[in-house]
Amino acid sequence: MVSQPIPPKSLRVIAKPNTIRWGAADPIKRGAIVGTVSNPKQRNVIGTHAGGYSVYEGLAVASGQLDPQHQPNLQHTQPVVAMRPNAAWRNRERIVTLDPWGAMTTEVFAPLYEQGYNIRPTIAITRATLNMPEIQQAVQSGRLEPDGEILLADGGLRVTKFAIEPVWYLPGIAQRLNVREKALRRALHDHTGGMYPELISRFDLKVFLPPIGGATVYLMGDHAAIAEQPVTVRVHDECNGSDVFGSDICTCRPYLIHGLEECIETAQSGGVGLTVYTRKEGRALGEVTKFLVYNARKQVGDEAEGYFERTECVAGVTDMRFQELMPDVLHWLGVKRIDRLVSMSDMKYDAIVESGIEVLNRIPIRADLIPADAWVEINAKKAAGYYDGSTD
Amino acid sequence: MVSQPIPPKSLRVIAKPNTIRWGAADPIKRGAIVGTVSNPKQRNVIGTHAGGYSVYEGLAVASGQLDPQHQPNLQHTQPVVAMRPNAAWRNRERIVTLDPWGAMTTEVFAPLYEQGYNIRPTIAITRATLNMPEIQQAVQSGRLEPDGEILLADGGLRVTKFAIEPVWYLPGIAQRLNVREKALRRALHDHTGGMYPELISRFDLKVFLPPIGGATVYLMGDHAAIAEQPVTVRVHDECNGSDVFGSDICTCRPYLIHGLEECIETAQSGGVGLTVYTRKEGRALGEVTKFLVYNARKQVGDEAEGYFERTECVAGVTDMRFQELMPDVLHWLGVKRIDRLVSMSDMKYDAIVESGIEVLNRIPIRADLIPADAWVEINAKKAAGYYDGSTD
Repeated sequence: MVSQPIPPKSLRVIAKPNTIRWGAADPIKRGAIVGTVSNPKQRNVIGTHAGGYSVYEGLAVASGQLDPQHQPNLQHTQPVVAMRPNAAWRNRERIVTLDPWGAMTTEVFAPLYEQGYNIRPTIAITRATLNMPEIQQAVQSGRLEPDGEILLADGGLRVTKFAIEPVWYLPGIAQRLNVREKALRRALHDHTGGMYPELISRFDLKVFLPPIGGATVYLMGDHAAIAEQPVTVRVHDECNGSDVFGSDICTCRPYLIHGLEECIETAQSGGVGLTVYTRKEGRALGEVTKFLVYNARKQVGDEAEGYFERTECVAGVTDMRFQELMPDVLHWLGVKRIDRLVSMSDMKYDAIVESGIEVLNRIPIRADLIPADAWVEINAKKAAGYYDGSTD
Repeated sequence: MVSQPIPPKSLRVIAKPNTIRWGAADPIKRGAIVGTVSNPKQRNVIGTHAGGYSVYEGLAVASGQLDPQHQPNLQHTQPVVAMRPNAAWRNRERIVTLDPWGAMTTEVFAPLYEQGYNIRPTIAITRATLNMPEIQQAVQSGRLEPDGEILLADGGLRVTKFAIEPVWYLPGIAQRLNVREKALRRALHDHTGGMYPELISRFDLKVFLPPIGGATVYLMGDHAAIAEQPVTVRVHDECNGSDVFGSDICTCRPYLIHGLEECIETAQSGGVGLTVYTRKEGRALGEVTKFLVYNARKQVGDEAEGYFERTECVAGVTDMRFQELMPDVLHWLGVKRIDRLVSMSDMKYDAIVESGIEVLNRIPIRADLIPADAWVEINAKKAAGYYDGSTD
């Protein structure tokens, strides 16, 4: 009897490519995230790509506009900067909400693409020049000085942008929130009205692509300098009403601009500025709840004391952003130390520090950036223990 | 034998409150949308509230922060303007993507709340003053003139804001897209990776709350004047990179500002301005796909001819926004005629006109608002048949 030759290790792994070994150092051993639906046998996750936009894919298929077997042509889509793996990428506890290999799929999973696997990148990295009126004004008034490289004479701001879709490793999420995986899966199932029965029936599937928004990182300076040079960070949770429309009831856009200015100055002096924009509208309660709370606050007399209370009356909680999941993106980028954290939030600060990143300075918003109607928010936050710099 | 008394008609309906009769004129007969999960027996829809943020509710329950039986206290949350039903509210084909009664639940479903039904508003209406640097500059330069009522001397803009969650009546969506309901439900199920098995197992449930973003309406002027006075409309699909960060590769924020300026002028002359902001990032393909396409466009030479082609290579389609679903919000607000439609998009124009709204004038973007790097987009759109005003 002729003994079977033992295949080389990497081939053995490829022969069973749809097992995910979260945290494995070698991407081929870690396994690709296959969330596409063109070939159900390839899938190894719960859910699919593009967050809730998969619902629109359903419409596109139903109406005959999208070929359900479509395989993306990913030629020329590769990241504009070379991402280098760091220790956090192979730490199964440090990164549990994104796929560290998500931007490099065509590179690291090339053998799988050749076998016909339909693997979609979950991260995309590109460059842009931003034209923001407040930054232009800061240049005109001399508060910011153009350098011709990062900040242009006309106020244009050169950035590298990272769009990141959520990829949740459920055992890691459970550990982070200090609950059992089974209880987490049950709550996720029940409180979405039964979304994805695999959450409670397929415990072998450990990765979930939830239909929620992800994050976008705006990086100023040289990303390769993150580990060595000073780093300024603003982690900004979406507030469409202020970020886009400048609503005067809160400080979101003013604080976003402040964060960008701090990032620019750090990048100009050889460091790196990171503004992380996360899609967690209205403290992850959504905009309908937010507007309901606005009305309640105004009608009961808009005082700092009632600020969080009204939210709890309507939503049952004051906040659902789960900042303990937020630092993953910083670890992914290789941040070990933040020289300037532009935030007053204790929740953000605590989450970052507890995840093992050192924070040297906390930068509160400049008083001159606060709209008149937003002092209620600021005072409520200070009363609730937000950092205001005054005790430092 | 004593015959059973026949209960009055309205009581009979309340006795079986969880049947939805989409398009019924009387809200009690139409039935309330019950998507909450606190009492599964009350539910009469597929999915739950707050779009994808229900996933965060799952985290909040799992970690013990949110009582799974929480019933919102909706006191003082009511709309700041009185919505008056119009004919479209009782037309089961005209409005199929939102609940016309969604802002008035505490008022029209009061008997159901008394019976302990956990009914959440799917629409919230509040007021705000917007501080946008471009509008302030337009006031300073004299292009816009403050009136002290809508536009303040400091450039502050007074608006009424409507946050609207999607509520999909599946037979109506199918009809709008010209497909069979069964095929629609199958595609929605399969292309989300099996989200909500009820899509293919519970044909008695006709309403779906999809985990996608909704729309926000910014209304300038008196909403009660919509039927009588001139109306200007900008329907703006989300582009976070431009709307918030002013990315120079597209014209989104400049066009949004242009739309707001047109809305202000119409409101100042006694009409109504409506800017509708819909959460359809990157033509509803999502931001990761968008950034992949940017890279492909730049690397193959960024010419107008390749603009849509690169999107199709990556995504399989050039657009998934399904503008035919968009006019519902205009009908809900009572729009019958648009005097000025601030858009170059034939898809938007066709959808609005085909839904029965007359459009008198189409307003293309002003050339001086187009960033240098965005001419590729404008030229590609013109070549693809977008309206540019030059043939008018």
